[in-house]
Amino acid sequence: MKKPLIAPSILSADFARLGEDTAKVLAAGGDVVHFDVMDNHYVPNLTMGPMVLKALRDYGITAPIDVHLMVKPVDRLIPDFAKAGASFITFHPEASEHIDRTLQLIKEHGCKAGLVFNPATPLSYLDYVMDKLDIILLMSVNPGFGGQSFIPSTLDKLRVARKRIDQSGYDIRLEVDGGVKVENIAEIAAAGADMFVAGSAIFGQPDYQQVIEQMRTELEKSRHGSFH
Amino acid sequence: MKKPLIAPSILSADFARLGEDTAKVLAAGGDVVHFDVMDNHYVPNLTMGPMVLKALRDYGITAPIDVHLMVKPVDRLIPDFAKAGASFITFHPEASEHIDRTLQLIKEHGCKAGLVFNPATPLSYLDYVMDKLDIILLMSVNPGFGGQSFIPSTLDKLRVARKRIDQSGYDIRLEVDGGVKVENIAEIAAAGADMFVAGSAIFGQPDYQQVIEQMRTELEKSRHGSFH
Amino acid sequence: MKKPLIAPSILSADFARLGEDTAKVLAAGGDVVHFDVMDNHYVPNLTMGPMVLKALRDYGITAPIDVHLMVKPVDRLIPDFAKAGASFITFHPEASEHIDRTLQLIKEHGCKAGLVFNPATPLSYLDYVMDKLDIILLMSVNPGFGGQSFIPSTLDKLRVARKRIDQSGYDIRLEVDGGVKVENIAEIAAAGADMFVAGSAIFGQPDYQQVIEQMRTELEKSRHGSFH
Amino acid sequence: MKKPLIAPSILSADFARLGEDTAKVLAAGGDVVHFDVMDNHYVPNLTMGPMVLKALRDYGITAPIDVHLMVKPVDRLIPDFAKAGASFITFHPEASEHIDRTLQLIKEHGCKAGLVFNPATPLSYLDYVMDKLDIILLMSVNPGFGGQSFIPSTLDKLRVARKRIDQSGYDIRLEVDGGVKVENIAEIAAAGADMFVAGSAIFGQPDYQQVIEQMRTELEKSRHGSFH
Amino acid sequence: MKKPLIAPSILSADFARLGEDTAKVLAAGGDVVHFDVMDNHYVPNLTMGPMVLKALRDYGITAPIDVHLMVKPVDRLIPDFAKAGASFITFHPEASEHIDRTLQLIKEHGCKAGLVFNPATPLSYLDYVMDKLDIILLMSVNPGFGGQSFIPSTLDKLRVARKRIDQSGYDIRLEVDGGVKVENIAEIAAAGADMFVAGSAIFGQPDYQQVIEQMRTELEKSRHGSFH
Amino acid sequence: MKKPLIAPSILSADFARLGEDTAKVLAAGGDVVHFDVMDNHYVPNLTMGPMVLKALRDYGITAPIDVHLMVKPVDRLIPDFAKAGASFITFHPEASEHIDRTLQLIKEHGCKAGLVFNPATPLSYLDYVMDKLDIILLMSVNPGFGGQSFIPSTLDKLRVARKRIDQSGYDIRLEVDGGVKVENIAEIAAAGADMFVAGSAIFGQPDYQQVIEQMRTELEKSRHGSFH
Repeated sequence: MKKPLIAPSILSADFARLGEDTAKVLAAGGDVVHFDVMDNHYVPNLTMGPMVLKALRDYGITAPIDVHLMVKPVDRLIPDFAKAGASFITFHPEASEHIDRTLQLIKEHGCKAGLVFNPATPLSYLDYVMDKLDIILLMSVNPGFGGQSFIPSTLDKLRVARKRIDQSGYDIRLEVDGGVKVENIAEIAAAGADMFVAGSAIFGQPDYQQVIEQMRTELEKSRHGSFH
Repeated sequence: MKKPLIAPSILSADFARLGEDTAKVLAAGGDVVHFDVMDNHYVPNLTMGPMVLKALRDYGITAPIDVHLMVKPVDRLIPDFAKAGASFITFHPEASEHIDRTLQLIKEHGCKAGLVFNPATPLSYLDYVMDKLDIILLMSVNPGFGGQSFIPSTLDKLRVARKRIDQSGYDIRLEVDGGVKVENIAEIAAAGADMFVAGSAIFGQPDYQQVIEQMRTELEKSRHGSFH
Repeated sequence: MKKPLIAPSILSADFARLGEDTAKVLAAGGDVVHFDVMDNHYVPNLTMGPMVLKALRDYGITAPIDVHLMVKPVDRLIPDFAKAGASFITFHPEASEHIDRTLQLIKEHGCKAGLVFNPATPLSYLDYVMDKLDIILLMSVNPGFGGQSFIPSTLDKLRVARKRIDQSGYDIRLEVDGGVKVENIAEIAAAGADMFVAGSAIFGQPDYQQVIEQMRTELEKSRHGSFH
Repeated sequence: MKKPLIAPSILSADFARLGEDTAKVLAAGGDVVHFDVMDNHYVPNLTMGPMVLKALRDYGITAPIDVHLMVKPVDRLIPDFAKAGASFITFHPEASEHIDRTLQLIKEHGCKAGLVFNPATPLSYLDYVMDKLDIILLMSVNPGFGGQSFIPSTLDKLRVARKRIDQSGYDIRLEVDGGVKVENIAEIAAAGADMFVAGSAIFGQPDYQQVIEQMRTELEKSRHGSFH
Repeated sequence: MKKPLIAPSILSADFARLGEDTAKVLAAGGDVVHFDVMDNHYVPNLTMGPMVLKALRDYGITAPIDVHLMVKPVDRLIPDFAKAGASFITFHPEASEHIDRTLQLIKEHGCKAGLVFNPATPLSYLDYVMDKLDIILLMSVNPGFGGQSFIPSTLDKLRVARKRIDQSGYDIRLEVDGGVKVENIAEIAAAGADMFVAGSAIFGQPDYQQVIEQMRTELEKSRHGSFH
Repeated sequence: MKKPLIAPSILSADFARLGEDTAKVLAAGGDVVHFDVMDNHYVPNLTMGPMVLKALRDYGITAPIDVHLMVKPVDRLIPDFAKAGASFITFHPEASEHIDRTLQLIKEHGCKAGLVFNPATPLSYLDYVMDKLDIILLMSVNPGFGGQSFIPSTLDKLRVARKRIDQSGYDIRLEVDGGVKVENIAEIAAAGADMFVAGSAIFGQPDYQQVIEQMRTELEKSRHGSFH
């Protein structure tokens, strides 16, 4: 198992001070900046585009930035996000007519590539692309809608995805996004996830560092078998 | 003729310090914050959504915020932008199946409403909605594409629009967006515009105040007939 | 001026007893059955299709049936509605890529054809099709949305449309739909309409005949110049 | 195995006397009213919307009403159908970007929720939603096209679906729609279905009660093992 | 008035011998190759793309090639057609969200640019783009549908377009397409057209040269005033 | 195992002499004409439609023509291609709302029917349609994009598809398209394919016959077990 990564979602950060707030959460222990892109078509909300990402790089953010595209179609935005400084780019298989091609496009632009699975999306989309994936993201809430909590059936799905990754022999991160918090992160890690998106669970607290440390403590418990 | 308004487009501001940069441009003399929303469908770019606007209000920006929706369809986003603190909401007539209804929707949510005309869009869309408009925005470049300069035929179009506003007797602002700068603002004002969007012309300069003052000086010339 | 026609919109009738309610409103003096078709795409509602119309014909309704297509695209439904027994078929110019072709298609299927104008839609769509129109329908509310009242600027639009019809020399009905009631029908007729859709104004009353007679009385006043 | 339910599809009823005809088929032994909604986009036909359903409730129909949405997208219509009096709402997984969310939306509005599978749609869409389903509907003809007969491969699919339901431990109805009639209902029940939609098979006969009784007799045979 | 140009539409040529048939019609006196591109979305047919055009250039066709895009959207295909060897590229204003931008794109790729008007499309789309047009094409049949004859109201539309061109002072061709033949070409020219597309009228005859000469004779009559 | 078929893709032929070039490749040993249809919507390119196919039949091509529809939606074009002379028609399952219905439609028009799988498309779409398939086409490159080479994971997918065909007992061809050439055709055949599309591999060579013979030699090796 790889070192678990914590990816604060800056969708919950302060957009008026995005550079500062992002730097702060990274200083507090965040590993990866999670960047949620919504286009008001694939999901009923519109958030932020490549120029916001570029501003973070210009501000001096050097941590990996993990772009989750909740857009449809996806191909036209990929070069823009790559050029703006994205590290990972993930998309939903239902949002591209040519999934294999989109994965290649992301890689040709120098980024790591991944697929995102909505809560109800079957994992059969993995059948013929494992050799092209750097990351698999399982949504544990429905993207683009507010006020949801972790969907329990994600745990089973994580176990199946973990098994497929391990059997494939490929080096693929298993990320989870939605309702992750100190109280359930150990259980989620035990199900196989090794990368954890958290938005309001971190940014909604006064002390980012404390939350992230609590998460890491929980993750340690999970790794050392003290979680059941 | 009303007092001319200068509306800095924060699409050219620093997104990592958006609160600060916006406050700075307002302190430098900007009248209205121009807020460009692109959805990667109506135009080939994706910028920023309601939560960015809300962050500006939370930061303490109290100036009017002028939301230009370059999205299609438009209705679903209107309540979100109104709630986030928009003052004006404008949209393209081609982007709504029910233009009159969309105008009413904006007003029901407490905002001022307007139509935006692409460079080639005829003004016939004005024929039966003058009583519902607070603002008419003429694009003097094609929205969503970079590196363009002011399209000269906009001057004629401004004169026609100005005449229609004056004849209508309604209190309607005539805004122009695209390639406006110190060198041409007087001519544009002389053609009838009374609200001026400027992005890189302001944010691309080290001293915002100086540019805005130069613009005002030019606008004064135009008003006092010294422009031909 | 032609004999004015009153067209009760059965969207306000009782769908559990549609044959009976339609027959009743015709017996009460309705001239034409107005049949509103919504597809949840062009407008945010879904109402009824060709098989409902056919059931009315099978029930014995012989009055003209005036089908207003609030759908997009339109061509595929035209043969079905014609075969089911439609008399008029009207559609919105924005809802067909090939307006002239759609008008021809309606006529090839033996129906009278018309264009419908949303409140904000300019009349320039009439420029090159007057020779193919049997009817022009001006919406005086936004179609597909509830609880609206008659939009006053429709009166001016009716006057322009009336003038264009008269100047063309063609035999074209001028229909109006939205917020028409006893209180305003004379004024609307004076502006040039000669076909009047009314839904809840008729079906919302206990005595259909009384309302329709009141409408006719008002229309008479308008014709004899007693309306100003 | 639960008590089998017979669900007459009122798409085959008399739309001019829909209240009466629906009441009649229920009095004749129908258990559930099956209500087919087509939008001329997901399928090439347009049928009926929420106001027709509401009229049935106002008429006094109290039996469960099973709304099958052959529309795309689906979310906007769900609150309308729930409010109009729907009991079940089912939709096609290909017609929603966010299947899990749509299922939750149906339940939040107080209805039972289900997925519908086209003849060629794989059952993998069931993988992570069994805990949210009240009903699974397998189409045994292609929805929206006329004149088809029962597709034989549905029997195998029913057996697979039945097994998945039984293994899940959840309380989920297994419904079948398309070409069901007296001659094949026993075989279909033997394959695992416990809810049977029938349209013209019932409404095309002079005596609804006789058909429904024949169906029940066949279903009894199937339950008591006399069918092979 | 400019020298009239005859533009044989190779949609009526022999696609199995397209190089030879095109060369033949040019040798017979055709001035410009008219190239009709349909995408089965903007019109209900699919014809030919850039690689067919390129093959004609490789074959040795050096005459101007006039590409009429009956596609939606249009921008993505423009670079491909320019690179393949197009001389003119025209598109329908309804098929581009950004008409001015599309015109610029065509010119940036080294081609002459134009707008095409469907029979019912109003000429108001010309209002603010005359300075960017090299050609205006008026459809005298509905594009993409077979077996149609020249729509008479096109003559009036030609007269209006001719007047607008003359008043503008710009060098703009006025092209007409649909049902043009020896019998009506003089009348069409008299209405103002100076470029004439003809498909089956030429390719449907055994002797292309004879038809084209007859057309030229008719055009001469029209120019010398012998047509009324 | 059936006799392997070689299907030259005329997308790589000379479109100015399509009849001649097609006849030449058939005379050189090609078994089936592969005909790639792109609509600039499902894939980012536009190629050729039914009239090109018809011209080939009129030219005298009698070999089977295998139409691969890279279009969305698909149903409207099927009758046109069937009438023009298609032998096989294949489409992508993601491109039809009603896959079973589309397969039936192809057969009703007298053609053999098949599904095409993009590199990443799971084979679960086969689950309930094996009895309706005459052909399964696996893409070994992403359709509609140039300059790609054979995707290695296709070999595993071919083995799975071969197994499903053999177990089904149905008479179904297993076709492969993308990057097939003399160097890899034996390996591809060994994985289970029995129909091979080749474009530039054949048309890019001066001597079509030599390439095709080399391919057949390789195929023989594969059949006789000399391939590992």
